[in-house]
Amino acid sequence: MAKVAFLGLGVMGYPMAGHLLKKGHEVTVYNRTAAKAAKWVAEFGGSSKATPREAAAGQAFVVACVGNDEDLRAVTIGPRGAFESLEAGAIFIDHTTASAIVARELHAVAKAAGKGFVDAPVSGGQAGAESGALTIMCGGDADDYARAEPIVAAYAKASRLMGPAGSGQLTKMVNQICISGLVQALAEGLHFAKRAGLDPDAVIEVISKGAAQSWQMENRHKTMLAGEFDFGFAVNWMRKDLAICFDEARRNGASLPAAALVDQFYAEVQALGGGRWDTSSLIARLEAFSALQKP
Amino acid sequence: MAKVAFLGLGVMGYPMAGHLLKKGHEVTVYNRTAAKAAKWVAEFGGSSKATPREAAAGQAFVVACVGNDEDLRAVTIGPRGAFESLEAGAIFIDHTTASAIVARELHAVAKAAGKGFVDAPVSGGQAGAESGALTIMCGGDADDYARAEPIVAAYAKASRLMGPAGSGQLTKMVNQICISGLVQALAEGLHFAKRAGLDPDAVIEVISKGAAQSWQMENRHKTMLAGEFDFGFAVNWMRKDLAICFDEARRNGASLPAAALVDQFYAEVQALGGGRWDTSSLIARLEAFSALQKP
Repeated sequence: MAKVAFLGLGVMGYPMAGHLLKKGHEVTVYNRTAAKAAKWVAEFGGSSKATPREAAAGQAFVVACVGNDEDLRAVTIGPRGAFESLEAGAIFIDHTTASAIVARELHAVAKAAGKGFVDAPVSGGQAGAESGALTIMCGGDADDYARAEPIVAAYAKASRLMGPAGSGQLTKMVNQICISGLVQALAEGLHFAKRAGLDPDAVIEVISKGAAQSWQMENRHKTMLAGEFDFGFAVNWMRKDLAICFDEARRNGASLPAAALVDQFYAEVQALGGGRWDTSSLIARLEAFSALQKP
Repeated sequence: MAKVAFLGLGVMGYPMAGHLLKKGHEVTVYNRTAAKAAKWVAEFGGSSKATPREAAAGQAFVVACVGNDEDLRAVTIGPRGAFESLEAGAIFIDHTTASAIVARELHAVAKAAGKGFVDAPVSGGQAGAESGALTIMCGGDADDYARAEPIVAAYAKASRLMGPAGSGQLTKMVNQICISGLVQALAEGLHFAKRAGLDPDAVIEVISKGAAQSWQMENRHKTMLAGEFDFGFAVNWMRKDLAICFDEARRNGASLPAAALVDQFYAEVQALGGGRWDTSSLIARLEAFSALQKP
């Protein structure tokens, strides 16, 4: 068992830190809003600190799950950040979905001071965080990953080292690129089925047996047809992730026309008030335009 | 066992007619190119006729699997077409992926003469036709479908009546709409993974466990990465099917922006010489542009 600090108790971090404690690790938490940290300690035990620097002092591992590049820099290299107290030999594990740039930058800063840094974005969403069944895509040095793996195992169903620093983030980007166009295609299919007067549930039962099948089709078609989006992975977060993809693609030369189109559709979902809706709400945009049509 | 005529011995119809004969039905075939019909008879047995009208005479069922609306009209209501000899009480089963319009039109013509018509497009491709594991989406009258079902069972793993005449075609359209955007998203993801210097096979192994998973991801990523497209469902056919979708969407008011974009990308694949490539060749277009980039 290890001494672990956990920075960021959002919808993902809160249950993830809980899994660490339940596995027997000695957990110290930090959260920007202190009341959340107090609630966590009341629920799980462990202790909380007022700054990342205090939380990271004396730990073997410091784990973060915050919002974006800026938040990540704040809790690491910012004033009273974890890197001010992170000990030589300790490993920083970052679960934030962030850019490969910031991952490489923090990896370099950490290494220069004899510390480890593993970028480790996750997939599996809030449900995966709560059940401890996340998939974790890692970048960094093999020896650091080997030490981090038993720690993240507390809330992972699978983890894998994908390559050098930043590779975890790049892998997560591939995941988001594949999802965005796929969900739009599914939304168009369901929208068409409704307009065509078909029973969309029956259609999905039939076509999900073949080449159109997807996790999204099987797990989201019912809520998409019902217009229920008050759960899951928010449109605002997806747009943040896609912005990272486009920024990286500007550097590596990849062309992402469907992802770019879908990002614009997500902007329209935001305009409809759906920034916090699940990413499957792309169908709400199609239906909204449909509702405006003259009979 | 029944007397069945089969019209159209293409890559799909050829093995499908073979399954009918192997199940014990008495099969008479017709093909526009007579040599193909002769080859079929030499391989399987049964008999062939020189026109759809001759093939359809005296049959309980007439099954068609031809190229498009025009071909379908030719073998049914055209000169020497099957409807000239189709007997009252017989059922015409159409496996062509065609418009809902032609399905409703032929259903009305058949019904007015006391005959049955079931639109029954398939999914599962050449492999499904050869192994007898197609999924069949049907439209028409319940009693006609009930009689047709045991016939198509010769090459189906599943069949279902989706609603009135044309509903089979509309369901197939939903299938193609879902596939087109999904494959483009997958192509962009794999293309990005390569440009980002990741091991794309490792990436797929990880992300196919989660929300990005699809049949296409699992069954096409290896050939997409290898640039192998000389198999499967051709781009030319997909464009024909998508044209039917857009035509129907003009009538029912559905909005299909991603499908429309991908259709234009397929036009570019055709321009690259890939009209007969598998639909997964969307990645070839991305890679082709990539190869033109200045270093």
